[in-house]
Amino acid sequence: MPQNIDVLVSEVGPRDGLQSIKRTMPTKAKLDWIQALAAAGLQEIEVGSFVSPRLLPQMADCDELVKESNKIKNLTVLALVPNLKGAERAIAAGARKLTMPPSASRTHGLNNIGKTPEEAIDEVKRVCALRDTLPVKQRPEVEVGISTAFGCTLEGPVSEDWVIEMAGLLAKAGADSIGLSDTSGYANPNQIKRMFRRLRNEIGPEKMAGAHLHNTRGQGLANVVAALEEEVTTFDSSLGGLGGCPYAPGATGNIVTEDLVFMLEAMGLRTGIDIEALIAAREVLLHGLPEEMIYGSLPEVGLPKGFTYAKARGPM
Amino acid sequence: MPQNIDVLVSEVGPRDGLQSIKRTMPTKAKLDWIQALAAAGLQEIEVGSFVSPRLLPQMADCDELVKESNKIKNLTVLALVPNLKGAERAIAAGARKLTMPPSASRTHGLNNIGKTPEEAIDEVKRVCALRDTLPVKQRPEVEVGISTAFGCTLEGPVSEDWVIEMAGLLAKAGADSIGLSDTSGYANPNQIKRMFRRLRNEIGPEKMAGAHLHNTRGQGLANVVAALEEEVTTFDSSLGGLGGCPYAPGATGNIVTEDLVFMLEAMGLRTGIDIEALIAAREVLLHGLPEEMIYGSLPEVGLPKGFTYAKARGPM
Repeated sequence: MPQNIDVLVSEVGPRDGLQSIKRTMPTKAKLDWIQALAAAGLQEIEVGSFVSPRLLPQMADCDELVKESNKIKNLTVLALVPNLKGAERAIAAGARKLTMPPSASRTHGLNNIGKTPEEAIDEVKRVCALRDTLPVKQRPEVEVGISTAFGCTLEGPVSEDWVIEMAGLLAKAGADSIGLSDTSGYANPNQIKRMFRRLRNEIGPEKMAGAHLHNTRGQGLANVVAALEEEVTTFDSSLGGLGGCPYAPGATGNIVTEDLVFMLEAMGLRTGIDIEALIAAREVLLHGLPEEMIYGSLPEVGLPKGFTYAKARGPM
Repeated sequence: MPQNIDVLVSEVGPRDGLQSIKRTMPTKAKLDWIQALAAAGLQEIEVGSFVSPRLLPQMADCDELVKESNKIKNLTVLALVPNLKGAERAIAAGARKLTMPPSASRTHGLNNIGKTPEEAIDEVKRVCALRDTLPVKQRPEVEVGISTAFGCTLEGPVSEDWVIEMAGLLAKAGADSIGLSDTSGYANPNQIKRMFRRLRNEIGPEKMAGAHLHNTRGQGLANVVAALEEEVTTFDSSLGGLGGCPYAPGATGNIVTEDLVFMLEAMGLRTGIDIEALIAAREVLLHGLPEEMIYGSLPEVGLPKGFTYAKARGPM
């Protein structure tokens, strides 16, 4: 966590947002958008996924995105890698942080990355072994977000005991940090509290990564409040909530970065992000994807009269 | 609080929702909607406002709505009264519970009900004096919701000390219970916690009414989670978030009843409300107000696979 912020907002729009829509955003437009996001103060951006271009042609330019984004100051460039092959490509492109999405649900795992949970854990182990062959200074951080940790659209409820056991196995496999993902928008605030408390007890606070929440049922920010109670300090979100289900107008995908940052700053938690600049970045996004449906409440009505950003707390 | 629920969801759509839109819903259609809401399990509904029909012609049928809604079993019928004259009409119509909206912001109070905060407190005193002239069994409950308690679109920040002082003065004036209203959609979760904690300390838990929250900036359910931490157990909401600002698509007015009930039940808090019946009530609402814009995430995507309602807790 950089010293000048209290909460890290990790922008996933260029990956999770873009992979959820059919159109492909041109590489130049992606880079303009990533630039605008970084200029607004975002310190971590997931720029793409090293998945097979046959499966997700929208992500075929991930190598170039990593290389170019690495030139931006004060930015951690994150890339999703589904497997060892993706990790090899990511490392070759110079990615400094990888994120892997093993699923706690067997059915979802087989559908999403073609792997059972056990096979996905083995894959994390292989990626960590690859990392460890590199000179220490060149090793990328390997973060894991357990998918469907709060329930699965295919299986329904997912065993909470199994999710926590899986987190322990992933830590043993060598993952640097492990978070929980509400892939399906099923989580509720009490479940969030219970699961992050258990996660912290299982793997220790230093290995606990953040919460990846979806706003599918409107519960996104409510779940953030619950996670904050359990000392979660990293949240994934997407500018404009990009990636909402096309069959459910209003039911957005990821939580909306603009609304999240507004809430955190209003609560007195520093994000380092300028909300006006964030709202301006929506135009850059729409320039690259004209007429795409994007979401967000704050951008529609603006900041409250007399709004002030969070201030540094405690002794200077 | 009825014994079979943990949280009381108080539906304000027929009052707050309808007064925020220009069209007038026919009385018969309002009654059909109120019936559908009660049939879904809502135990308290604010059916209208005894404001001058010249100011809000949409509310001119409040007398009839109170009389007819009083016939519905297991339903507390609530009516808004801005002043003594409104209270006289409400009592004549047989209202058993009145709610008054004095504003903590001087500018908002003068604009909204033509009264300074001090004058509004005096008006509550007059209404309570009227109540006390009635035989004990006929006295309506007088609830007060302090408007602009978390900030004002006209004045900006509102003094938190003054809001709490005002709550104390309203309790002295004879109000049976006092809650806080985020009229402008300015509240954040930390402010909600701080203010309800102070309110409880000031007037005591037995006089503490609920939270009236707006979702203008997408913070509605996040604020509910915060209020639950401070033992708030009554929440106002509106079916379909009816009453959203017409100039801000997506920026709804009241929090959406459907999303609220889903969250509470998922958290294990019983509301007594059937979510499928609530979603069906949207059709009844739209039948009375064809093509009106309504909101809500849950209704777009449905309940999670394997969803179960909250169960009674503790020893039977």
